[in-house]
Amino acid sequence: MRTAQVFRLSMAHPGDLSELERLIVSETIRAADVTAIIGKTEGNGGVNDFTRGYFTQTLMALLSRHLNKPAEQLIREIPCVLSGGTEGVMSPHYSVFCVSDAKGTQAQRSALAIGTAFSAPVAAEDVGRRAHVDSVAKAVREAVANAGIERSDDVHFVQVKCPCVTVARAAAAIAAGKTPLTADPNRSMAFARAAGAFGVALGLEEIKPDSFADASLLSDFSVQSPRASISSGVEIESNEVVVLGNSPQWTGRLRISHRPMIDALDIGAVVDVLADVGIAADPQVAAADAGRIATVLVKCEPDRRGRIRGNRHTMLDDTDINAQRHIRGAVGGLVAGVIGDGRIFVSGGAEHQGPDGGGLIAVIASQQRGSA
Amino acid sequence: MRTAQVFRLSMAHPGDLSELERLIVSETIRAADVTAIIGKTEGNGGVNDFTRGYFTQTLMALLSRHLNKPAEQLIREIPCVLSGGTEGVMSPHYSVFCVSDAKGTQAQRSALAIGTAFSAPVAAEDVGRRAHVDSVAKAVREAVANAGIERSDDVHFVQVKCPCVTVARAAAAIAAGKTPLTADPNRSMAFARAAGAFGVALGLEEIKPDSFADASLLSDFSVQSPRASISSGVEIESNEVVVLGNSPQWTGRLRISHRPMIDALDIGAVVDVLADVGIAADPQVAAADAGRIATVLVKCEPDRRGRIRGNRHTMLDDTDINAQRHIRGAVGGLVAGVIGDGRIFVSGGAEHQGPDGGGLIAVIASQQRGSA
Amino acid sequence: MRTAQVFRLSMAHPGDLSELERLIVSETIRAADVTAIIGKTEGNGGVNDFTRGYFTQTLMALLSRHLNKPAEQLIREIPCVLSGGTEGVMSPHYSVFCVSDAKGTQAQRSALAIGTAFSAPVAAEDVGRRAHVDSVAKAVREAVANAGIERSDDVHFVQVKCPCVTVARAAAAIAAGKTPLTADPNRSMAFARAAGAFGVALGLEEIKPDSFADASLLSDFSVQSPRASISSGVEIESNEVVVLGNSPQWTGRLRISHRPMIDALDIGAVVDVLADVGIAADPQVAAADAGRIATVLVKCEPDRRGRIRGNRHTMLDDTDINAQRHIRGAVGGLVAGVIGDGRIFVSGGAEHQGPDGGGLIAVIASQQRGSA
Amino acid sequence: MRTAQVFRLSMAHPGDLSELERLIVSETIRAADVTAIIGKTEGNGGVNDFTRGYFTQTLMALLSRHLNKPAEQLIREIPCVLSGGTEGVMSPHYSVFCVSDAKGTQAQRSALAIGTAFSAPVAAEDVGRRAHVDSVAKAVREAVANAGIERSDDVHFVQVKCPCVTVARAAAAIAAGKTPLTADPNRSMAFARAAGAFGVALGLEEIKPDSFADASLLSDFSVQSPRASISSGVEIESNEVVVLGNSPQWTGRLRISHRPMIDALDIGAVVDVLADVGIAADPQVAAADAGRIATVLVKCEPDRRGRIRGNRHTMLDDTDINAQRHIRGAVGGLVAGVIGDGRIFVSGGAEHQGPDGGGLIAVIASQQRGSA
Repeated sequence: MRTAQVFRLSMAHPGDLSELERLIVSETIRAADVTAIIGKTEGNGGVNDFTRGYFTQTLMALLSRHLNKPAEQLIREIPCVLSGGTEGVMSPHYSVFCVSDAKGTQAQRSALAIGTAFSAPVAAEDVGRRAHVDSVAKAVREAVANAGIERSDDVHFVQVKCPCVTVARAAAAIAAGKTPLTADPNRSMAFARAAGAFGVALGLEEIKPDSFADASLLSDFSVQSPRASISSGVEIESNEVVVLGNSPQWTGRLRISHRPMIDALDIGAVVDVLADVGIAADPQVAAADAGRIATVLVKCEPDRRGRIRGNRHTMLDDTDINAQRHIRGAVGGLVAGVIGDGRIFVSGGAEHQGPDGGGLIAVIASQQRGSA
Repeated sequence: MRTAQVFRLSMAHPGDLSELERLIVSETIRAADVTAIIGKTEGNGGVNDFTRGYFTQTLMALLSRHLNKPAEQLIREIPCVLSGGTEGVMSPHYSVFCVSDAKGTQAQRSALAIGTAFSAPVAAEDVGRRAHVDSVAKAVREAVANAGIERSDDVHFVQVKCPCVTVARAAAAIAAGKTPLTADPNRSMAFARAAGAFGVALGLEEIKPDSFADASLLSDFSVQSPRASISSGVEIESNEVVVLGNSPQWTGRLRISHRPMIDALDIGAVVDVLADVGIAADPQVAAADAGRIATVLVKCEPDRRGRIRGNRHTMLDDTDINAQRHIRGAVGGLVAGVIGDGRIFVSGGAEHQGPDGGGLIAVIASQQRGSA
Repeated sequence: MRTAQVFRLSMAHPGDLSELERLIVSETIRAADVTAIIGKTEGNGGVNDFTRGYFTQTLMALLSRHLNKPAEQLIREIPCVLSGGTEGVMSPHYSVFCVSDAKGTQAQRSALAIGTAFSAPVAAEDVGRRAHVDSVAKAVREAVANAGIERSDDVHFVQVKCPCVTVARAAAAIAAGKTPLTADPNRSMAFARAAGAFGVALGLEEIKPDSFADASLLSDFSVQSPRASISSGVEIESNEVVVLGNSPQWTGRLRISHRPMIDALDIGAVVDVLADVGIAADPQVAAADAGRIATVLVKCEPDRRGRIRGNRHTMLDDTDINAQRHIRGAVGGLVAGVIGDGRIFVSGGAEHQGPDGGGLIAVIASQQRGSA
Repeated sequence: MRTAQVFRLSMAHPGDLSELERLIVSETIRAADVTAIIGKTEGNGGVNDFTRGYFTQTLMALLSRHLNKPAEQLIREIPCVLSGGTEGVMSPHYSVFCVSDAKGTQAQRSALAIGTAFSAPVAAEDVGRRAHVDSVAKAVREAVANAGIERSDDVHFVQVKCPCVTVARAAAAIAAGKTPLTADPNRSMAFARAAGAFGVALGLEEIKPDSFADASLLSDFSVQSPRASISSGVEIESNEVVVLGNSPQWTGRLRISHRPMIDALDIGAVVDVLADVGIAADPQVAAADAGRIATVLVKCEPDRRGRIRGNRHTMLDDTDINAQRHIRGAVGGLVAGVIGDGRIFVSGGAEHQGPDGGGLIAVIASQQRGSA
């Protein structure tokens, strides 16, 4: 059997991996067990957010020293999914997912299971198109198999980091006679996220291959996966996939659950997903329970129709602050208030990820002894 | 006896007062009853936020037409307190406070009471100094008297809009041989807010005149008024004060309550202040009760120590987004999530207004018949 | 014969028209002569820039008082073309174009001529499409006729302000069964500017009606008018057109010239256009000549290919600062440095207005006696 | 004798040192000759600009591989002075300064000379105070001696990178009983730059030790060094100094000159400094001469009085865009227009560096054979 551990660590800046280093040096974490990283860095979350690349470079150099493997190899083996932007009360942090063998036989109840996969590189001209969707779907299936999750319902969160184009990459593709979907990097990021969401839905068999066309992406918002969490960044060329679920083939006290958020005010989803993992929030998680929460993962989106429950919002009309920064700050404020902790992963750009104008929330928490 | 009404209206842009015009034309509102306005416009909330001036110009022209008084006079009679910045899920809106005579005798229980006052103009060199504090305190006392509130404890919210200096006004003062506290407009806004908070504390006798010095402003954060809400803007030269409380001399179903917020994650204060006015939030205000809420007023502040409950936040280190925009977005997300409505007044710059790093929340709501 | 005058006035904020008021009161300007306004306000130049609306409301109220006409009528008679964003060294200002009758017969040489026109309102679903182009072209022809300019070559600058859609307007159109080109306001502004440029090119017969399709807008950048200057804003519904040129039917010392700018570094175009109107810049306009410059009008554009003369720029990849704000600041710095004055009109969004990645510059200056 | 070379290289992103790597691999550059780096990265130039740290980490890892020295040692031997922010037309790039031995005897004329030095770490409570000034002055003297420049007049540019405090560092100092000058990171950066400028002036004997007090920093702007260029960043703890001048002890075709800029419109200074090194700009440097320019170094500053040549600017009142980003964009546009190239180093924050409200420009260029 395998067992998963999650270490949620803070950083002083995007190049600060000192907490992880300390845990490796003190042998609390075996470097070889590090399977994936999901984190929030303090950039702007946009095309010119280099905090992701800085963190990744620092992480891979650190693991390279401890594993005696080249960083170039590790970067293709260990998904490092970072979302830039810790607007408002969010605190920069990263969750280190570790997997190790554990004694024991088939558990009475299932425990947190993790699987990862990398796709082949996605060409600039494929970004945001069916080839991209298929590439994601294939990697999702591999990661589910890798996690040993047998029932599709036991998958609760699929994080994908998708490549997008910069102005330079688009220009190079055009020069090579290719036709990228767009040369606008912010639009490319949005299409890449859509492709990722369609890929998750396809990989989990929530939709069928013939049920959508290229034109459905960023257009038919009835297509959605409530378990897909997609980021996009300029610093990668392949899709990176992390599947999180529960499986009786794994042991340990951690379990995961998820809920769709119907809109940015859906505090009910936050309370409900906590209840799913046995934690009360009335109105805030009690200090005694806070330590049981291993990580909180949220996707959100400024409602494209310009209104939330009938009232006009201004996120999409703001030339000064990017709409994704707006929504991350607001939803981060809500979720952090319920949890009582700013170390939450709130990522914008939830197109096709949960209900239109909303998103999703997943929580991994440690179960109390004796709980069902 | 008097009675107060509050109309919470939406706007399509900062120059759109069409909802108010409609209510005046339809005789739902008597123009002569309009006593004060408190609203959120969609600017950046900073020195160069002209949405406040635009709204005010439009409002005064509208009232001028209906009252046959010059706008120049009205602007010195009717406080129009606007906070720029509807970050995240907040919706641009304004609350119109109307006062009219009502039949009846001393009520069994007190009802919402409103008083207003204007100070003399504050010279550029006085902004953020004791002369400014005294000027605010005097106006607060006038407004309390004007409201007919007899017990200091019955004052629940004192909104003050304070003038600050621009680069141009500071330069003019210096040219005239004066010494403004600062020529930096953003710092001037902060000092002006501090002077307003000290002025409220002094006016409500929460502090004594000899208990502080000029140097205490923005420095000794043990001085705080949990009932002060201060905005600052370049478009005014006098302090404008609106006092809100409960008084047995007023009648009607509206009541107000307030709570300090200990930090930006203090969801408990939100739930508690709602309970004070008889509304449950479990976790969100039910649709049936939402209509009873007349207005929600919040002040908040990025914790200057750089941490919230021990975790580093990045608001103060962000060169791209002003820290006040960050915190408004986050606290707005939290409060709107509990209320289920983005039409809330969340204003940043809560220096000395409530606990350090936190702020305060006040709610005006209609009482159910038969409630205590 | 007619004569044109241009008054370049400063403002302390977007609602400050005091300099114009003073000139009207002192009878330097007859209010009835005011024909058009072109100005720079200190907003962000984007969808949520309300400095334009604020200025316009203040201007129309001012003229209304002096002309005894309702502001609602004046706003449909006097083009008020404002470009938001005074990045860097630019100074907020507005140029008031006045036209009056003058004695005299056909001049030996031509002088500055002005014509204006308003189109019918453009429906949200027409913005950025051929109906929009045709609407602009028609208004351009009317304005040229109105200016009495007979030779197309004598037209030097055509300023058009085009309506665009907000999220709300797009949603309303969709609800009405219409299909707006886009619901993204920033994209709508770009398409509106493209429609304006095509409209000018069509109106001046630089292109033929059958030489382009809807898909050419923002796509075929070989279509360009070196005399078109297009702004777009949410606050208008009709196209507003101001044609500036030289005509022997006009008298006075002012003349206009224009030059295309090949890219954002094209200082040669600045020096050349000044030479066209008889002013040397070596390297800067001498103080003695500076007073002869009546107004400077510039359009510019961040090169969409991501490079300027082979070197990568970062304007299009910046999530924090809008690309138009970047380019206005840079080109404003260059032109202001040559002129020695920050009171220049530099407007971004030069799609199809001058060479791709560049733009255009026009200068109106007073001719010295005896000059050819 | 020694000879200096300057390689101006482009980067695709802040972690891209591939051009340097290629030159080292091809043996165009000997890694051991690399003496200093001065570059522009595409961050925001503020406290939370991590592009500087990312570039530095990548550079030191690269040199470490080629020199077989630990990166931790190199970072204390090779100044890497980066200014974040390539607003407008500026192109991200870095200049690599290499020093090697050269045959020859005392030259007829002097050539570019380079010296570097590192100070001891500056404590958080010393930042922006006399201890900081003295620390810089001492390092400047060491770097001048190191460069072998004998006449103070032959020093043309002194680049210093000064540490500043973050919220976290300030809090740590306060917790340790120290009193940092400010806990506001943006103000700390400004004080650090002032300390650097005073340090250069002191080190070059432009001012005397008893001619200023702590309170003079950011207050007495008559103190200024026209040769000081100071950056500040959170990622360093010591002052790093690079002195550039001309010396007869050095050989080669490169020479440096500098000029003060009286304000942000001082195009004359740009043309004059080019003339100093034998290059004409009429109005732009000819393509044939452009290749002779090795690097261009500029400091600039938004005029704190709020006006440029009498006209109001809006840089200091803008809550959306930091004033330093504004001024870099504008001055960058002007200088790049004269040079015809966006690869220029334009750094904001020129307090006490050149005339108040202005700054300075230095150019290193290759001399033509036979030129005096």
